[in-house]
Amino acid sequence: MDAGSGARRGRLKTRRGDIETPAFMPVGTQGTVKGMLPETLAQLGAQVILGNTYHLFLRPGHDLIKEMGGLHRFMNWDRPILTDSGGFQVFSLGDLRKITEEGVQFQSHLDGSRHFLTPELSVGIQQALGADILMVFDECIPYPSPKAYVAESTDLSVRWARRSKQAHDREDGSALFGIVQGGMFADLREKSAADLVDIGFDGYALGGLSVGEDAEVMYEVMEFSLPHLPIDQPRYVMGVGTPENLVEGVARGVDMFDCVMPTRNARNGVLFTSFGRISIKQARFLRDDRPIDAECGCYVCKHYSRAYLRHLYRSNEILASVLNTHHNLYYYLHLMQQMRAAIEAGTFTDFRRAFYRKRQQDAADSAL
Amino acid sequence: MDAGSGARRGRLKTRRGDIETPAFMPVGTQGTVKGMLPETLAQLGAQVILGNTYHLFLRPGHDLIKEMGGLHRFMNWDRPILTDSGGFQVFSLGDLRKITEEGVQFQSHLDGSRHFLTPELSVGIQQALGADILMVFDECIPYPSPKAYVAESTDLSVRWARRSKQAHDREDGSALFGIVQGGMFADLREKSAADLVDIGFDGYALGGLSVGEDAEVMYEVMEFSLPHLPIDQPRYVMGVGTPENLVEGVARGVDMFDCVMPTRNARNGVLFTSFGRISIKQARFLRDDRPIDAECGCYVCKHYSRAYLRHLYRSNEILASVLNTHHNLYYYLHLMQQMRAAIEAGTFTDFRRAFYRKRQQDAADSAL
Repeated sequence: MDAGSGARRGRLKTRRGDIETPAFMPVGTQGTVKGMLPETLAQLGAQVILGNTYHLFLRPGHDLIKEMGGLHRFMNWDRPILTDSGGFQVFSLGDLRKITEEGVQFQSHLDGSRHFLTPELSVGIQQALGADILMVFDECIPYPSPKAYVAESTDLSVRWARRSKQAHDREDGSALFGIVQGGMFADLREKSAADLVDIGFDGYALGGLSVGEDAEVMYEVMEFSLPHLPIDQPRYVMGVGTPENLVEGVARGVDMFDCVMPTRNARNGVLFTSFGRISIKQARFLRDDRPIDAECGCYVCKHYSRAYLRHLYRSNEILASVLNTHHNLYYYLHLMQQMRAAIEAGTFTDFRRAFYRKRQQDAADSAL
Repeated sequence: MDAGSGARRGRLKTRRGDIETPAFMPVGTQGTVKGMLPETLAQLGAQVILGNTYHLFLRPGHDLIKEMGGLHRFMNWDRPILTDSGGFQVFSLGDLRKITEEGVQFQSHLDGSRHFLTPELSVGIQQALGADILMVFDECIPYPSPKAYVAESTDLSVRWARRSKQAHDREDGSALFGIVQGGMFADLREKSAADLVDIGFDGYALGGLSVGEDAEVMYEVMEFSLPHLPIDQPRYVMGVGTPENLVEGVARGVDMFDCVMPTRNARNGVLFTSFGRISIKQARFLRDDRPIDAECGCYVCKHYSRAYLRHLYRSNEILASVLNTHHNLYYYLHLMQQMRAAIEAGTFTDFRRAFYRKRQQDAADSAL
């Protein structure tokens, strides 16, 4: 703990090795973090990646992956994998799904085939994939939603969490995390947390964030939810977020994050830097011989100019996605490493101040 | 030289280092060999890559690349680069171009803008890019073409070759290669070769091959053209070819090849192996836990199954192109390395026999 902040430095033990926290998990939706070799991910400091149950269930199928020796062997990644429950994707399908107490009926976005996902099946899929950390199956609701609906849904998610735990075979050494829901309502979040702690999980996530709410609302939810979770267990905020979100999450005691932001933005030419984001496609980079970020120590910033990266992006070259993703993941993973070091040194509050000052300073400079 | 074959082992000196021949040159059309990091290309044994004058002229422009320190620095590749003259692409434009004695007027495939390419401009672009080996600007004609037209065009190409040489500034240490044309006509090829040798170049290419003719015709053209070129200078067959074409070219005394085949096929899921080609998208690979080629020593074959590569391809993942390209370039570059070793050992004829036997054997096996 750093005096004056809730930031905490921890170590999450898994059957495939330790994860130093706070940690960011790159997202490997379809059995690959898009455009990255697994060895490169490891070199960049990724300690754990996220796999998407929904996508892998539909293609190539969890049975096939199990037959091929599990997701780790299939994709050539030997560090921990956390899998989501598939709920988030299923509930994003809108009219293509129908919820009952038993589970969710949905149609595949690939071929329209019908499937019925339950807490038991979700856990079964995650175990077939060979996940080291599994997530309970929960309902993910739209934002904003009326409080009565949020309350009802949160209770359903607790019942599904209990079924998820019952379905989980702990013999393989994997861990199962509960997911606190409750929308943006403090009392519902508190009740959800209490109910889940009562069931008992290896870690706890906050779900239902980064769904369109203001960042301040997100931070408030962290503030009124986290105190109801056990201090000695990992806390994971799902689907979050921007570099600022990570700094604020860490400041409030969050241990784990995942987000497609660094990888998806990279493919769209949006790059993260110590002074904020830039869009590499802009004309101002046409003859810019400088690296993306002069302060960045990554392979891309050492060897390539903005002019070259702009050329690759505009030419629709594969290498544009590869290099941009490399840089953005370095930025995210290095940010986490800096935060871990600052917490250890008891200087997190200074780090946080410097993080924002740098952005404001450079914004002022570039306005000149 | 290997007894009983025309295969020859050589060393081409360039200002950026030696190229051991016979050599295959991966194609880096737009300032990148699609999907490959330059460091990986070097690890795979690429000694020299090809850059496309037409594409780089239009985007991002040779002036910009020169301003950024040249193509080597721009794309982070410090080994030799050979550039084509732009002719092949311009003449592929069909109705979008018009030929005169002076040069070729054409419209960009990107934005329809009009340009006029001459031997002098082509050499100027190639020198601005910083090519180590430049190619003369020549006319590339359709196949088949009437002999009278081929004869006329071949003479025009010789005149353009002379102008290319006059425009070439040798002060920077770069080399300039002539290009033998003449279609599939022995007498025209002989005349073209004689005229070019008379002008004098640092090396000689055969152009106008791999344009739809049968492989046997291609081999005949090699056989009746190469004897008219100086024995002590490099011989390069442009745009060729399949693994079989490379073996047959080497057997006939060719020193250099380039082709998009390994890289383009990779992106279409077609992979080269010691037993022939396979299409990774096929259903028979769905649950195939074996590597692409059990005899291959590449990174991909060491770490990934056919089932995984099929999944990546069908999921339209960037990593599919990256891994498939890696494997195919390894195959091509390793094939050249094996041929160089066989020539040195005086066993090229045995190598060539084994190369075909392996393909027939495995074709027979898989038919069982």
